[in-house]
Amino acid sequence: MSGVYGANHQGSAATLALTGSMLIGAADVRGSAGEVRGVNPATGEQLEPAYGLGDQSAVDRAVSLAWQAFPVYRATSLAARSAFLTTVADNIDALGDTLVARVVAETGIPDPRVRGELARTTNQLRLFASVVADGRWLGARLDTPDPDRAPLPKPDLRQRKIPLGPVAVFSASNFPLAFSVAGGDTASALAAGAPVVVKAHSAHPGTSELVGRAIRAAVAEHGLPEGTFSLLFGDGRNLGTALVKHPRIAAVGFTGSRSGGLALVAAAASRPVPIPVYAEMSSVNPVILLPGVLAEQGAELGTAFVTSLTTSAGQLCTNPGLVFALGDADAFVAAAGAAIGAAPGAAMLNANIQQSYVEGTDRLAGAGNVTEVAAGGVDATIGACGQARLFATDGDTFLANHALQEEVFGAASLVVRVADVAQLEQILDTLEGQLTATVHAAAADQDTAAALLPRLELIAGRVLFGGWPTGVEVGHAVVHGGPFPATSTPATTSVGTLAIERWLRPVAYQNVPDALLPDELRAANPLGVPRLRDGAAE
Amino acid sequence: MSGVYGANHQGSAATLALTGSMLIGAADVRGSAGEVRGVNPATGEQLEPAYGLGDQSAVDRAVSLAWQAFPVYRATSLAARSAFLTTVADNIDALGDTLVARVVAETGIPDPRVRGELARTTNQLRLFASVVADGRWLGARLDTPDPDRAPLPKPDLRQRKIPLGPVAVFSASNFPLAFSVAGGDTASALAAGAPVVVKAHSAHPGTSELVGRAIRAAVAEHGLPEGTFSLLFGDGRNLGTALVKHPRIAAVGFTGSRSGGLALVAAAASRPVPIPVYAEMSSVNPVILLPGVLAEQGAELGTAFVTSLTTSAGQLCTNPGLVFALGDADAFVAAAGAAIGAAPGAAMLNANIQQSYVEGTDRLAGAGNVTEVAAGGVDATIGACGQARLFATDGDTFLANHALQEEVFGAASLVVRVADVAQLEQILDTLEGQLTATVHAAAADQDTAAALLPRLELIAGRVLFGGWPTGVEVGHAVVHGGPFPATSTPATTSVGTLAIERWLRPVAYQNVPDALLPDELRAANPLGVPRLRDGAAE
Repeated sequence: MSGVYGANHQGSAATLALTGSMLIGAADVRGSAGEVRGVNPATGEQLEPAYGLGDQSAVDRAVSLAWQAFPVYRATSLAARSAFLTTVADNIDALGDTLVARVVAETGIPDPRVRGELARTTNQLRLFASVVADGRWLGARLDTPDPDRAPLPKPDLRQRKIPLGPVAVFSASNFPLAFSVAGGDTASALAAGAPVVVKAHSAHPGTSELVGRAIRAAVAEHGLPEGTFSLLFGDGRNLGTALVKHPRIAAVGFTGSRSGGLALVAAAASRPVPIPVYAEMSSVNPVILLPGVLAEQGAELGTAFVTSLTTSAGQLCTNPGLVFALGDADAFVAAAGAAIGAAPGAAMLNANIQQSYVEGTDRLAGAGNVTEVAAGGVDATIGACGQARLFATDGDTFLANHALQEEVFGAASLVVRVADVAQLEQILDTLEGQLTATVHAAAADQDTAAALLPRLELIAGRVLFGGWPTGVEVGHAVVHGGPFPATSTPATTSVGTLAIERWLRPVAYQNVPDALLPDELRAANPLGVPRLRDGAAE
Repeated sequence: MSGVYGANHQGSAATLALTGSMLIGAADVRGSAGEVRGVNPATGEQLEPAYGLGDQSAVDRAVSLAWQAFPVYRATSLAARSAFLTTVADNIDALGDTLVARVVAETGIPDPRVRGELARTTNQLRLFASVVADGRWLGARLDTPDPDRAPLPKPDLRQRKIPLGPVAVFSASNFPLAFSVAGGDTASALAAGAPVVVKAHSAHPGTSELVGRAIRAAVAEHGLPEGTFSLLFGDGRNLGTALVKHPRIAAVGFTGSRSGGLALVAAAASRPVPIPVYAEMSSVNPVILLPGVLAEQGAELGTAFVTSLTTSAGQLCTNPGLVFALGDADAFVAAAGAAIGAAPGAAMLNANIQQSYVEGTDRLAGAGNVTEVAAGGVDATIGACGQARLFATDGDTFLANHALQEEVFGAASLVVRVADVAQLEQILDTLEGQLTATVHAAAADQDTAAALLPRLELIAGRVLFGGWPTGVEVGHAVVHGGPFPATSTPATTSVGTLAIERWLRPVAYQNVPDALLPDELRAANPLGVPRLRDGAAE
């Protein structure tokens, strides 16, 4: 580990002083289209410094630099790009306590979870460093030519994947590190060879600047073009739309609300040249409890459920917002209700989110045939306090009221007492697309569970047998995606190594001389990357 | 080879009589929303029978059957699905001369090219049969769990790809077999486990019915649900839009015009649940001739160019519609002009296409600073006769007039005399996305060619060194795709084995017991499919 963010500089005032500027390539640029500050959601305190918001000129400058950087950055060797990603991780780790403290102040997320998220973020960057070096992501394919084939010779065709172009990344509020400036979208796009322009989330601008400077330092340390990375602050509707509409932006990554994601999708589709938007948006993550498991472990499940539900004040995209219980759910509901009742009030990420949560839970409370099982504590010393709430209804009511499946972002959930498997299947048929679907089954439930799995995989990107959907493992086999509206593009994932494919497209080379081919397609395979020849592993 | 379309039945009137009906699952359904007939473009003759056009009720019936078929068809074993695709190929081959004669009559395409396209179509089905059996397309990934990991156990995560759901396929006019009822879209979707509803192209309804019956016979022979395949006739604006908007359709394949493709993209985006449209639309396939190769082989290149340009009356999506010549292009232009002058008039696919071609070439002829180098023959005995035409201009004019890069579908091309490499780079920067880009280079041009290749791959899905873009090899390494407007989804291909990925999405399974996992993810790998464990080949 080395560089300007190395251990010697950790926490030094000179390096870590926040400026309130955007980072456009190597330049600090102060926006003049208004200001935003971080706010401590627990205390309401306005944090220093104020961040100047950018406008079209900031977008133009950042994207123009990204476009200039593109041919150079995408031509970096696998080894060089991998080393760059590792340095980004090292530089962020080196921020240490300074970064953790700023995240806590700006988001109200407890210190231990922030440290866990920090480790996840830099591990994710290192995972992509290993993915880049391995080269499987290039999708190298070679078809053996046959010059003597009749009636026409078979040409020499070779295929690899190249990056689409500069990528715009929109940060999420609920993971200020792992789905933000250096989160999965940025890591996978940089791994793919795409320069990145991040629009920071206004709820954690200081965190964004710290992380942004760590990336910029890595860019400089590795001698990469300054436009490889830029960080903008601005209003989503104005600066965000301008970024998506810029003709040199080739793809967009987004994690956030359904309305926000759909606005970007619409903006991208209305361009003269439409581009893909990978938006991860809305999910209520149904959990199915079958009769056998409810009878055997109803109370334990109720307690474990509330632990998952109230993690991070429920502000997780994989939060279990819907429970379908078959059979006798009394012990489960009683235990869950007791746990909810004992849950203390917790700081939500910001006042807007807390306001939406109150409105959403009040809608649930007021819905016909929906009863409130229990409510958690409220802490009057917390400004944007979230109160856990648990509701219950029956299957008929759920089927009759589509609004009951809308996401309420926070620690609220709805237990639906389902009449039988036939009604459950009817419910599954009406459910919107989800990030996850979970089934709990005891030995007596195995046949039912086996019959359900093919239905669950049609509505979700990740199917769990037992356990709870919160906690997304970052690896090769994970899928954090799913049918609309969980995402705008169900054939992808925003977490895990497969996420790199979002920023790539295949190109075929026909009869190109060996000396002019990219290294990964040359006869000698000098990079030693995994390849397919005539459809089989080489 | 066997089945109702086996050799014993070849050409029998009972089997091959055309009915004019839609094939909705196992039923013949006569549409009542108007009629269409095949027309011999060479003679203007109206062909029997008339085809009744379907309406919303036909769409509802076909898609409902497809949705019922989906869980059964996607659960077929790799071996069973592979055998089904092989039978489809066998049944189409067995149609033999009957099919070829009908294609010739409906499209004016010469007998030898029809036979070549027939072989390509059934070879493509057999290639996908081998792809299915191999199982690599499943994308099986396993991450090793670690129950002892601290602070949290690492779960057992496994990933595979499943089909999106029933697929709508829109046939193209210019490949009545290879991009039509049993073309690449249908073959790849059936391979992926997706039922298919085809909207036939109105220009070759009899061909469509013959091929549709061959597929239906294979469905029956293999005991598959009838909804695995349906064939509809109808108006694109009405029946086509209804098909794309049906809530049970999960994805769309299309090959055709830019306006037609964009209409489907807009319809799909306006659904409550948007779906992907894989539209292959518009390309002029630039060919770059560098000074050295022009000096060495200008005349030979001119002749070869016109052979490529006039193939199939120029009605190929990879037709070389733009030539950028650096250096002395006189010999090239003279030879090309002579070859054009000697090119006989040829039947175009239908009167609409011929009319658009006349309008497009007349626009070119009337454009400022564009000269007509040569025109080919006209055959007054052919109704929809296409006349080859060659135009020329200079780089400044091309840069000043964006309309000069619009596709003119037919045997017309524009030679642009480019001032120097700098101007060529300027031109490449303004070019729209393309299916192909070709560079011809002699030994003296190698450095220029090497510098150009990274630019060409940014605008095209297939980059050729020498040769001509017409003729698309069907294999593992080919890409028939490219940036917008060549396609609506640049990260895919509509030809070659990678095309299967358009109909798939990944699903992750977390802590699912071995007995409940799909076979390809079970510990013992009973299917023996290629898998990744912890990111490396197992």
